[in-house]
Amino acid sequence: MKEREIPQKEARAKAEKLLSGIKTVFLATNGSHGHPNVRAMMPLLFEGVETLWFSTELESSKIIELVKDDKAAVFGYSPRSMSTFRLWGNVKILDDLVSRKHVWTDALKERFPGGAQDPNLRILRFNAVSGLFSGKDGHSGIFEIK
Amino acid sequence: MKEREIPQKEARAKAEKLLSGIKTVFLATNGSHGHPNVRAMMPLLFEGVETLWFSTELESSKIIELVKDDKAAVFGYSPRSMSTFRLWGNVKILDDLVSRKHVWTDALKERFPGGAQDPNLRILRFNAVSGLFSGKDGHSGIFEIK
Repeated sequence: MKEREIPQKEARAKAEKLLSGIKTVFLATNGSHGHPNVRAMMPLLFEGVETLWFSTELESSKIIELVKDDKAAVFGYSPRSMSTFRLWGNVKILDDLVSRKHVWTDALKERFPGGAQDPNLRILRFNAVSGLFSGKDGHSGIFEIK
Repeated sequence: MKEREIPQKEARAKAEKLLSGIKTVFLATNGSHGHPNVRAMMPLLFEGVETLWFSTELESSKIIELVKDDKAAVFGYSPRSMSTFRLWGNVKILDDLVSRKHVWTDALKERFPGGAQDPNLRILRFNAVSGLFSGKDGHSGIFEIK
């Protein structure tokens, strides 16, 4: 496979296009006992690849991990094209009403019957600082996010 | 969703069944600058959930990360049933001919034209120490691997 490095702007645009076409990403955190942790998550909203919003339950192991260490990585891919992106950044755990309402969708009702104000709901806002796009044809590129 | 804790043996058996039905898992490592890292990988072989074998390229960022810190996590899921498993363990980077031949399959030829002895090929052997299975219906359980 011939490797080709693509410019930052193109890599970021391709990562954004890929993200907008998928439902599930994989969120890695620094877990317990020095091991990383990883799980599938559906972003509720995203602003480019810069900011991804997720919901989680208060008693989730993610919360404990992210309180201790907010550094995280997000991986996404297209099983068809095998294009992939990775984002590295930090996660804020939000509990304010503005954030809750910002991401609320009725699809969350099953998990959070109390709606946007459900006491068990927490919002995770992932802010990327850098990323990497890799296409199946061997073109790839990193990008910084200011 | 009603939560139900299942015994270790059942949780492990369900994780093994799930692993045997999927092609892709997600391998998280302790990456650079304190951030975790994560990517999709296809296990070449596995022995229950205890040992998973992967191939990688010598110049992969995984190699650098795993030389520094061999702790890793593997996540797998069924997009249909939304059952998931997680495994925590350690990864050994292997370069001996027995390991190379153990995992070799002709499907690797495109990436490693030199075959099992391709100088660019490295074998990753993930050994789990513990795991977690979660079923969509709310039953879940952890298991230790001796």
